Amino acid sequence: MQKIAVLTSGGDAPGMNAAIRAVVRRGISYGMEVYGIYHGYAGLMEGQIEPMNVGSVGDIIQRGGTILHSSRSEKFKTEEGQQEAIAQLKAKEIEGLVVIGGDGSFRGAQNLADKGFPTIGIPGTIDNDIPGTEVTLGFDTAVNTVIEAIDKIRDTATSHERIFVVEVMGRHCGDIALWAGLSGGAESILIPEVDFDMKEVTYRLLEGNKRGKKHSIIIVAEGVCPAAEIAQMIKEEAGLETRVTVLGHVQRGGSPTAFDRMLGSRLGAKAVDLLREGQTGKMVGIQRNRIAVVDFADVFSGKHSIDLDMYELGKSLSI
Amino acid sequence: MQKIAVLTSGGDAPGMNAAIRAVVRRGISYGMEVYGIYHGYAGLMEGQIEPMNVGSVGDIIQRGGTILHSSRSEKFKTEEGQQEAIAQLKAKEIEGLVVIGGDGSFRGAQNLADKGFPTIGIPGTIDNDIPGTEVTLGFDTAVNTVIEAIDKIRDTATSHERIFVVEVMGRHCGDIALWAGLSGGAESILIPEVDFDMKEVTYRLLEGNKRGKKHSIIIVAEGVCPAAEIAQMIKEEAGLETRVTVLGHVQRGGSPTAFDRMLGSRLGAKAVDLLREGQTGKMVGIQRNRIAVVDFADVFSGKHSIDLDMYELGKSLSI
Amino acid sequence: MQKIAVLTSGGDAPGMNAAIRAVVRRGISYGMEVYGIYHGYAGLMEGQIEPMNVGSVGDIIQRGGTILHSSRSEKFKTEEGQQEAIAQLKAKEIEGLVVIGGDGSFRGAQNLADKGFPTIGIPGTIDNDIPGTEVTLGFDTAVNTVIEAIDKIRDTATSHERIFVVEVMGRHCGDIALWAGLSGGAESILIPEVDFDMKEVTYRLLEGNKRGKKHSIIIVAEGVCPAAEIAQMIKEEAGLETRVTVLGHVQRGGSPTAFDRMLGSRLGAKAVDLLREGQTGKMVGIQRNRIAVVDFADVFSGKHSIDLDMYELGKSLSI
Amino acid sequence: MQKIAVLTSGGDAPGMNAAIRAVVRRGISYGMEVYGIYHGYAGLMEGQIEPMNVGSVGDIIQRGGTILHSSRSEKFKTEEGQQEAIAQLKAKEIEGLVVIGGDGSFRGAQNLADKGFPTIGIPGTIDNDIPGTEVTLGFDTAVNTVIEAIDKIRDTATSHERIFVVEVMGRHCGDIALWAGLSGGAESILIPEVDFDMKEVTYRLLEGNKRGKKHSIIIVAEGVCPAAEIAQMIKEEAGLETRVTVLGHVQRGGSPTAFDRMLGSRLGAKAVDLLREGQTGKMVGIQRNRIAVVDFADVFSGKHSIDLDMYELGKSLSI
Repeated sequence: MQKIAVLTSGGDAPGMNAAIRAVVRRGISYGMEVYGIYHGYAGLMEGQIEPMNVGSVGDIIQRGGTILHSSRSEKFKTEEGQQEAIAQLKAKEIEGLVVIGGDGSFRGAQNLADKGFPTIGIPGTIDNDIPGTEVTLGFDTAVNTVIEAIDKIRDTATSHERIFVVEVMGRHCGDIALWAGLSGGAESILIPEVDFDMKEVTYRLLEGNKRGKKHSIIIVAEGVCPAAEIAQMIKEEAGLETRVTVLGHVQRGGSPTAFDRMLGSRLGAKAVDLLREGQTGKMVGIQRNRIAVVDFADVFSGKHSIDLDMYELGKSLSI
Repeated sequence: MQKIAVLTSGGDAPGMNAAIRAVVRRGISYGMEVYGIYHGYAGLMEGQIEPMNVGSVGDIIQRGGTILHSSRSEKFKTEEGQQEAIAQLKAKEIEGLVVIGGDGSFRGAQNLADKGFPTIGIPGTIDNDIPGTEVTLGFDTAVNTVIEAIDKIRDTATSHERIFVVEVMGRHCGDIALWAGLSGGAESILIPEVDFDMKEVTYRLLEGNKRGKKHSIIIVAEGVCPAAEIAQMIKEEAGLETRVTVLGHVQRGGSPTAFDRMLGSRLGAKAVDLLREGQTGKMVGIQRNRIAVVDFADVFSGKHSIDLDMYELGKSLSI
Repeated sequence: MQKIAVLTSGGDAPGMNAAIRAVVRRGISYGMEVYGIYHGYAGLMEGQIEPMNVGSVGDIIQRGGTILHSSRSEKFKTEEGQQEAIAQLKAKEIEGLVVIGGDGSFRGAQNLADKGFPTIGIPGTIDNDIPGTEVTLGFDTAVNTVIEAIDKIRDTATSHERIFVVEVMGRHCGDIALWAGLSGGAESILIPEVDFDMKEVTYRLLEGNKRGKKHSIIIVAEGVCPAAEIAQMIKEEAGLETRVTVLGHVQRGGSPTAFDRMLGSRLGAKAVDLLREGQTGKMVGIQRNRIAVVDFADVFSGKHSIDLDMYELGKSLSI
Repeated sequence: MQKIAVLTSGGDAPGMNAAIRAVVRRGISYGMEVYGIYHGYAGLMEGQIEPMNVGSVGDIIQRGGTILHSSRSEKFKTEEGQQEAIAQLKAKEIEGLVVIGGDGSFRGAQNLADKGFPTIGIPGTIDNDIPGTEVTLGFDTAVNTVIEAIDKIRDTATSHERIFVVEVMGRHCGDIALWAGLSGGAESILIPEVDFDMKEVTYRLLEGNKRGKKHSIIIVAEGVCPAAEIAQMIKEEAGLETRVTVLGHVQRGGSPTAFDRMLGSRLGAKAVDLLREGQTGKMVGIQRNRIAVVDFADVFSGKHSIDLDMYELGKSLSI
């Protein structure tokens, strides 16, 4: 394989630039030509394809976001869109493609692979919701961003002896809430995977009050329900006033942590190795702290589950 | 004066602990006994008054919030409340009081001064909305917190070429929005002091678009209108989709910047000096970068205005 | 087991407070009484033992260092010292001890276990040099601290087109250098485990120069040789001027990352579970991302080795 | 004036990019063409001059260092060098030059002005050592970087009850040491402007010890003497062991604070205004928190002095 390309797709995640850098430099170290595709699949169909060199990816490992930009594309889900994409790649004699994104992006990569165009996926999303890998690129940074926010909110919570309800990202997956809640010392953590009992939440608040703990932080994943509704329920159940903060888009950005830079570097290099070995239709992820290669099919049929031990640990430590 | 006390009141602000430390240590350096009053005026009326020593305020200069806790009190606005407060102070033979808080807190301090109890105020609020001082304790930290958030949001804005509307604190005062917008490189800044023209905002967005600038950040102070309304107007005016983030309570917390630690230290020490000189009913602030002493009366009758040159500067640099 | 105690020993590491919090709260959740021992083994021999409650460990999960303080003790290596320690523990009817520290601290814990006093160890050190666990408490924070410093130094390196030699901690173990070098995008990484070839280092610098890359960062673990000597060698070999920075003690401190807070929480809780099950003379660590329980004997006879794949990865990406 | 240029010279400082951005955009807002000169005066003499547009300075306000790079040049101190510089500027029909740097850089700018080429200087250096302005671009960021390091070191100092001697930048000017020491809560601050009495330093340490304060941080500006010598003196005078950390080049880098971004923006815009008004041979700085315009001659003959009140304040608060 002499020419490969890389694109980022879906929501951006810290560490994507480290992965792009690794794809480019690993490819070049094998004597390949490496191309960057701008604006994801949408840009691919339009031929936004530029040659990259060692310097193109200099001084980017520490930057959030993605220098290749990202997008979502409906057209690429069509046969026509995919044919255009392959035509663009072939026009540049590109023989393999690394796709950095979430499972939606991998479906696109699977479509290309089905049509005979080699693709390898790298799980890049802050949500940590991709089956087949125990961690996704950007998750560690997002959790650290959330705990920095919680640490700040705690200053006010403590000073004013107030209860805060903090909403974090996670529509279907409670991992950000769970990790950030545990490491932020939250008093209650509400996640989509576990039915919550408002009576237990308020019981913990009231018990804490009795012991003299007048401030509390409750973390709720956006997939559970809006934080404002939790606040309303607490008022109705327990007569307690709360303040609500929705962390929002700050969770996606920021300079990646060492872990995400390392993860992006490792997965990016491995993706090139796999293309070179002639593999296709696979995601390169992490299982039990080792690089693991998983068929896209297994990603699509799999299910990411939260670590219930951790959930229980959170409860026993937030007394 | 042999015995003085210090309390924090109203919203907490980073740097309050530096001011508390300075009051305690400056007092001790003069041979005074210094007391900490917990929970603001509410705690004062209940006699939550504890002696402080050099070690009580060790290792706090870098902490957000206030170790003395804060509160708001309706009762203290009454004659009865104020009499109780003075009785509590006299029971401990305390002869002077330093109040760290906003202008509401200073009204309480003025009431005590009117009754013959010496009080000095330190302007502690992130909002920078207190007449008579060009900067308030906590403002610098809050602005830095906001620009860190903007820097993160910019990663996503750039990667996805999106427009973000970011709501920051400031009900009547646009200083946080103005400073953070200018130093965060925001494309438009909307503040309560200046009527905004939605046509100009959308014109800037559309002009930027024409030049190839596809991402933008618009900062809006909460006192203008909710960010979601701005987003709606942009959609109606220009047909552009935006994302909304409301930064919320993270803006109050966090380890104070060097500036706020220094400011708290200087104002705290000066407040003790003033009590010692027999002064009362005054705020110690900053004017033209020097310590300034202002009568509470002038604070109440004054008006904080924004720097219009800065507002114009923002416009000329965000092209 | 009704009464347990916890101490920290050796160099402090971020995350120790999370582990202390977990030991205390997990113990209390089982109905135990939990004691904190101050100043490590030295304090233990002197009876510096205080009861802890749920509130004793409130608001500490985010703090660097150790609230129990730490120390090194020669006396505790003697039979007499160990007898005194056991006498102190028995005087308080304490039945089990959690020791948070490095392998030197575990030898002390092994001595107590040998004498019939149940002990469990938690690997707490930034150096990541303890056999039997793939990561130690504090390592993730230290690496992130180092890359923040590298990111800052890179600003100057780029602006002035200079070469910087940065010395990081690691006497026998190059993991901090390796991780920080890789995730900081360093051009060369020198670690104690791999003999370095100065000709290769200078060749990389000169080749980079030819390609137009005029700034470079070289990371050297303290166990290799002082950074100043590397600088001298580069000058002699290649005639290139460099600047030297020794990061020093900042690497030990700081608010722990989410990973270290989580790791401390998990290991602390598990240590209590093990004591409760009647286990002793064991370390609780992480292997392949799962909690692993290892005999101290295996820790002492084991050898921590670096990941050579990562070392090679670093080389291929820093071209 | 239709065409102007900007360069950065001497040591880099955070905020330089904000100033470059302001020069470029303010110039463009007046309809000017603006050029960036790379590598300071050295690059100027070689004609490294590129046109800048609005987008050239997009997304740089938050970056440390200088996108124009910097250098020091001996040749530019010669008549020949200056003639070459002017020839290069005239070849591009450039009529005015903004120089961002320290007082050495201003001497170069004065030379050009003396030869009839209009120049305006912006004080960019972390050292805060330029007469005629009460603050220099980069100082606020550097102080915040230092206090973050002190906060980390304090974790270890407290945990191990040790004394640390921390060396910070400042050959002739103690402002970084003074500000960082005061806002970092240092026990002693040694600066070049004030003779220090080692007996007083050790007395404070020993007195602190008696009161139970077993950890201390001593800040020393590099211009006083190497930190290691202070450590040696403390050992000889008081028999106390200390640890030494030399912060080094991290102090120059990092994303600028809000203050430095604002300062760079204001000074950059004003420098263009001055050129446009036909002014030359002047520095634009800050006096009493307002923009001030000062002749280079007054900068060269002036003397920056530290604020002795602040020095005394530090002493009274670090008891």
